[in-house]
Amino acid sequence: MATHKLLLLPGDGIGTEVMAQVKRVLAWLEETGLASFAVEEDLVGGAAYDQCGLPISEEAMKRAFAADAILLGAVGGPKWANVPYEARPEAGLLRLRKDLQLFANLRPALCYPALADASSLKRELVEGLDILIVRELTGGVYFGEPKTITDLADGQKRAIDTQVYESYEIERIARVAFELARTRRNKVVSAEKHNVMKSGVLWKQVVSEVHGADYTDVSLEHQLADSCAMQLVRAPKQFDVLVTDNLFGDILSDVAAMLTGSLGMLPSASLGAVEELTGKRRALYEPVHGAAPDIAGKGLANPIAMIGSLAMALRYSFGQGDVADRIEKAIAGVLAKGYRTNDIKSEGTTVVGTDGMGDALLAELAA
Amino acid sequence: MATHKLLLLPGDGIGTEVMAQVKRVLAWLEETGLASFAVEEDLVGGAAYDQCGLPISEEAMKRAFAADAILLGAVGGPKWANVPYEARPEAGLLRLRKDLQLFANLRPALCYPALADASSLKRELVEGLDILIVRELTGGVYFGEPKTITDLADGQKRAIDTQVYESYEIERIARVAFELARTRRNKVVSAEKHNVMKSGVLWKQVVSEVHGADYTDVSLEHQLADSCAMQLVRAPKQFDVLVTDNLFGDILSDVAAMLTGSLGMLPSASLGAVEELTGKRRALYEPVHGAAPDIAGKGLANPIAMIGSLAMALRYSFGQGDVADRIEKAIAGVLAKGYRTNDIKSEGTTVVGTDGMGDALLAELAA
Ligand SMILES: CC(C)[C@H](C(=O)O)[C@@H](O)C(=O)O
Ligand SMILES: CC(C)[C@H](C(=O)O)[C@@H](O)C(=O)O
Repeated sequence: MATHKLLLLPGDGIGTEVMAQVKRVLAWLEETGLASFAVEEDLVGGAAYDQCGLPISEEAMKRAFAADAILLGAVGGPKWANVPYEARPEAGLLRLRKDLQLFANLRPALCYPALADASSLKRELVEGLDILIVRELTGGVYFGEPKTITDLADGQKRAIDTQVYESYEIERIARVAFELARTRRNKVVSAEKHNVMKSGVLWKQVVSEVHGADYTDVSLEHQLADSCAMQLVRAPKQFDVLVTDNLFGDILSDVAAMLTGSLGMLPSASLGAVEELTGKRRALYEPVHGAAPDIAGKGLANPIAMIGSLAMALRYSFGQGDVADRIEKAIAGVLAKGYRTNDIKSEGTTVVGTDGMGDALLAELAA
Repeated sequence: MATHKLLLLPGDGIGTEVMAQVKRVLAWLEETGLASFAVEEDLVGGAAYDQCGLPISEEAMKRAFAADAILLGAVGGPKWANVPYEARPEAGLLRLRKDLQLFANLRPALCYPALADASSLKRELVEGLDILIVRELTGGVYFGEPKTITDLADGQKRAIDTQVYESYEIERIARVAFELARTRRNKVVSAEKHNVMKSGVLWKQVVSEVHGADYTDVSLEHQLADSCAMQLVRAPKQFDVLVTDNLFGDILSDVAAMLTGSLGMLPSASLGAVEELTGKRRALYEPVHGAAPDIAGKGLANPIAMIGSLAMALRYSFGQGDVADRIEKAIAGVLAKGYRTNDIKSEGTTVVGTDGMGDALLAELAA
């Protein structure tokens, strides 16, 4: 069994709390001989800024390049509201995504049956929901230049952000979406605003071309992003794979996640291209939820999304789908036994804190 | 009683069908002497393109400038999927918004008690919901330059869209939001992505400044647009007025509208600045729903959003709030009597078509 180089970046807020539970699972995997890791840990986000004035140090970036996979907690919080724009906590995460070229962000929005009642939506609309959002993560308005604020006359200012997409960026994310659809229910919805944005025109065109050339066995539907947001609320089960750009993906994946009632439950993977020589791809795994400053430090955070992210790493980066399955089964197990953190509690369940959920998970894993 | 100059632009798809019902209400208002109109009608969108090769003619634009208010149905449809970008149906609507400087788009998302069960959300989450989205409508990525697709080497293309906001644009829409909040529950949420976009940084800053200078009596909360989308699904009743930019407003207002279960019910107003000399402001009123090509021509469309848009025109453009009230009461009346179009039907209600709903409304108005 190979030793996996794993970099842990707990980050800010509840990021450190949920990462603490991942460490317990890593220790258990090591003890039982199921998986072996060379673990490093470093700072990102506000925590890094407080230490070195940067949202991620060059040292940490080097470690990120050297790692087989990265697990990240969450970044951000009101404490850093006034740091310079280039040093804000989010810039650390954005630099990781961009420099490592993690262009494919996979965000499953899965409704755990035991949690269907925690959704805002009626049970019948979300029960069995299983959407995979495939979000482009290294292009668009997040990284396009110019991105400036300029002083004009009379104290007026002008802010500019630029959405840029080149065909190859759209093509590669479309391929990821179609490939994944083939392993699922064979259906892709692509969302853009071609009626308003030129990048939407190009997006729709390239996705159609890739489809026509290589994936006619997969069904493809184009939706306008606004109408797609509506459809997510109206009838979410119509979706299998949803592919979209960086900014729309940010919003639509949050809507989809919230629908499931399982926000604290949802992991994500951000993947780079498969390298020709090694067959490896760079990868970062993180929960969909944020740093949640309102509950940080209280031991209330749900560690399941973070531990689910470790499972995704085992599956996508380390070829250990069996171990990933085992972790995911343990997650289902503790839910079935009625354990709930605050975010997913309902009548008749046993509410536990972050540590308590970790205890329950480890017991379930060992059983 | 003054004669109001009203321009009707039915547009495409169900736009013409719902506008036909507005004409019946206009005739009734005229007969009863409640309001008097000099009505003109013209084409916009695909209908205009089919006639003159443009999504709106210069003649129609002149009429739009001369009108006291414009009522617009909807634009777009698959028939025009392949017309040149500059001539697509939506370009007609966008030109009206931009040239008339209709910068303030008011989109009430109101849950009619009789329709709470038509929502995807659990009844208790949406019952009594009353959000007013204030969307900036003449700036941002919709109109910023450059907006281009360029050919690169090897058949590659690059698409660019540009989000531009100047302080004065943010200031004026913020003022509209704060003023409206004072007539409601005194609460404004402002949504942007200041953690990723420079326009978000400026947006947040200007909204805070306007608030601090003139509206400290109104409560103000900043939310990230992705997190705001989540909150709309999680706990929509926390919102009173929600102010945001053109693109986020497009998506968030569709989410909010869909929450209510009353999509076919929701009107909107797009307002310009109040002119110093005349006290007048340019205005366009349209349903939040689109041209719905799937049901167009079948007599199934719900005309209530369109007729509600006429009521908004009477209130905001013509100072006839009493007549607007009467129309809105009639809408509530037909719902209470159990009349429903297809989009809002539920068990035990009487399903009617577009004409049938018009009949019911006129009967209720006359009663
Ligand atoms: C933290 C922030 C920069 C980030 C984003 O906007 O991409 C987050 O919202 C996400 O979705 O991962
Ligand atoms: C038709 C389209 C251009 C328009 C928009 O994107 O603004 C529509 O979606 C809306 O919200 O009014």
